[in-house]
Amino acid sequence: MEENSVSLEEIGARAKRASREMNRLGVTAKNHGLEAVAEALLSHQDKILQANKEDVTAAKEKGIKESLIDRLCLTKERISSMAEGLRQIIALEDPVGEVLSMKTTPLGMQIGQKRVPLGVIGIIYESRPNVTADAFGLCFKTGNAVILRGGRDAIHSNYAIVEIIREALLRCKLPVDSIQLLTDTSHETAEKFMRLNRYVDVLIPRGGAGLIRTVVEKSTVPVIETGTGNCHVYVDETADVAMAADIIENAKTQRLGVCNACESLVIHSKIAERALPVICDRLAAHSVEIRGDERARAFWSGMTEATEEDFATEYLDAIISVKIADSIEEAIEHINTYNTGHSESIVTSDYHHAMQFLNEIDAAAVYVNASTRFTDGFEFGFGAEIGISTQKLHARGPMGLLALTTTKYIILGNGQIRK
Amino acid sequence: MEENSVSLEEIGARAKRASREMNRLGVTAKNHGLEAVAEALLSHQDKILQANKEDVTAAKEKGIKESLIDRLCLTKERISSMAEGLRQIIALEDPVGEVLSMKTTPLGMQIGQKRVPLGVIGIIYESRPNVTADAFGLCFKTGNAVILRGGRDAIHSNYAIVEIIREALLRCKLPVDSIQLLTDTSHETAEKFMRLNRYVDVLIPRGGAGLIRTVVEKSTVPVIETGTGNCHVYVDETADVAMAADIIENAKTQRLGVCNACESLVIHSKIAERALPVICDRLAAHSVEIRGDERARAFWSGMTEATEEDFATEYLDAIISVKIADSIEEAIEHINTYNTGHSESIVTSDYHHAMQFLNEIDAAAVYVNASTRFTDGFEFGFGAEIGISTQKLHARGPMGLLALTTTKYIILGNGQIRK
Repeated sequence: MEENSVSLEEIGARAKRASREMNRLGVTAKNHGLEAVAEALLSHQDKILQANKEDVTAAKEKGIKESLIDRLCLTKERISSMAEGLRQIIALEDPVGEVLSMKTTPLGMQIGQKRVPLGVIGIIYESRPNVTADAFGLCFKTGNAVILRGGRDAIHSNYAIVEIIREALLRCKLPVDSIQLLTDTSHETAEKFMRLNRYVDVLIPRGGAGLIRTVVEKSTVPVIETGTGNCHVYVDETADVAMAADIIENAKTQRLGVCNACESLVIHSKIAERALPVICDRLAAHSVEIRGDERARAFWSGMTEATEEDFATEYLDAIISVKIADSIEEAIEHINTYNTGHSESIVTSDYHHAMQFLNEIDAAAVYVNASTRFTDGFEFGFGAEIGISTQKLHARGPMGLLALTTTKYIILGNGQIRK
Repeated sequence: MEENSVSLEEIGARAKRASREMNRLGVTAKNHGLEAVAEALLSHQDKILQANKEDVTAAKEKGIKESLIDRLCLTKERISSMAEGLRQIIALEDPVGEVLSMKTTPLGMQIGQKRVPLGVIGIIYESRPNVTADAFGLCFKTGNAVILRGGRDAIHSNYAIVEIIREALLRCKLPVDSIQLLTDTSHETAEKFMRLNRYVDVLIPRGGAGLIRTVVEKSTVPVIETGTGNCHVYVDETADVAMAADIIENAKTQRLGVCNACESLVIHSKIAERALPVICDRLAAHSVEIRGDERARAFWSGMTEATEEDFATEYLDAIISVKIADSIEEAIEHINTYNTGHSESIVTSDYHHAMQFLNEIDAAAVYVNASTRFTDGFEFGFGAEIGISTQKLHARGPMGLLALTTTKYIILGNGQIRK
């Protein structure tokens, strides 16, 4: 890997210039660039695999745990998926440039809101090198320049991928600085990057709760918080028990380490005796450890004790907490206290309770009688996803291309002045 | 003034609880509360005026400058305007609760985005006590709880206004903690307030550039940056000189201390000799000091020298800077370098240049042949304004009621699980 000695300031300035050029590109040029990049990733896969091998070897030497090495590891199949992901992005409609409607003001000016790129997007992520190509694809399609700060462990892989992308863009005469990688992966540089307000319009952290907390804490650039999901399923008094068991099994076990997995079960006291044994047997068959409050433990013998901390924990593992509630109000209060604003579901046959849950739960996605696992840009039909926003500003829930754009007012006059 | 010894943590918790109650209110109840508050402000105006007198006396003793005392000072007319402002908000449509469309997914779930309140909004502002009632009105109408942190100089006025509002809400059995004032106006408490992520969903600073910089710098709560406007008018080669003079006179002098006033003039070199004397004479008639670059100074003798710093300054005063550009590209580059993302205008008769300026200028509002002074929630037809966002996330440009809301996905299923 060559040393990149360009200063952070210069990287920012280059990104800003590239974003101005990107803003002038039409969708045909952008799609042409994406296709060239997809082809280049496939034709240079040996280079990527070789760089990745360096990262994987180093990670093994450092004794990094197996699940993280799996995330880090690239294969021919994974590189094909990266290229395929870019081609899917080509097929999506470009939201940039749309003016939804122009209205005429009393003085005869026409005024409308035009959809435009955000400008320069900073992405801070952890070990998965496929994020490098995914994030580039989404930012490029929406006319943004991106500055990537990946994890230290993936630096060789990321560098190889970014160089291949830049070379492909250069061949197409498209702005190469629309993608730049911070090769200095020190915490000091990361912190400076989070304060590069002059050049960076928005920061999107992608990774675990610790990474996201650090970015929120240190950043002066506006941040879109993503990902942390302490998701609940509430089994109401009138729930269909078989449906509840299906939904909970799916939400907890279909994939353990994901943000939309169910981490906590809340169950109405009047149905607990009937429903808990069915649900717990189902979860136990998947080797899920069940931690319950005192009342819950009375209904199923294999349950261990749930503490206050359990209710606040996103396990991302084969563990679930259980709480008994005496009313839907108590359930909603519990969920609104411990949730992280991601995805929450009620299983009920009661119309009023369904409406109450939908209205009163404070989260990005609120479900009635369905699994929380559906909170996902692809499942929601966006065709792509840059992350799942758990904050309320700008974008909430799965973020597709639209979340990478903003608007500006355009006003067409013929000499109007304000009286 | 009574001492409010409630901790910041408790204020946050009360606001969060109140926001949950607010979320359950319909528009009739909210409008009823706003009307009761409008009446209470009018019937208790003596109490407000008396409290305000204390603030004004203290400010005079401290030797605060006249223009700030004018902002601080309340009169019967200004209190009537506050009440009138609330009644205008009653007349506006409530955006909360709308579901734009529900789509059916391949598995048969219905999914839609529902417009909901943000939750708890923090507003940090300076000396104008009328902001207290305005901000409350907009937040209350959109179902949000608000925590206000006003300037020290207005503390008695703000306290009186907030108490009258809370008493009126109490009489209507509406959530009194939907408005709370931080009576501890220390910087230390302000900084803690900016990090109250557990309870506060968004912070909106309203005031000068220094206040906004501090909030962006110190806050971990998501911020909507408002207000700073280093706005330009660019006079293109083909501009109608009379129109340019009218627009610049209006944008610069119609009101000096506002964020959408023109602070800088960029003029094409080919029209400078013809246009600058006309424009400068017009500005000089309003006693505007004109600071130009070397080439500009050759065209009008009364011009003083503009430095790099001048181009970067939002004067909010009877001063304007002038720069000569040899092309529209140079003008756009100059504006994109020095502007603050607020409002920019081109005066031109050239269609292609008009389009280029609209597309390439990076700002919340971009004008062709009109005054920058129109960037305003009322002028844009929103009927109200909480501030003008100069950032790209969430809201850009004048913010009406819609900017105080977010969305959540609601998903109606009948047992769907993810395969």
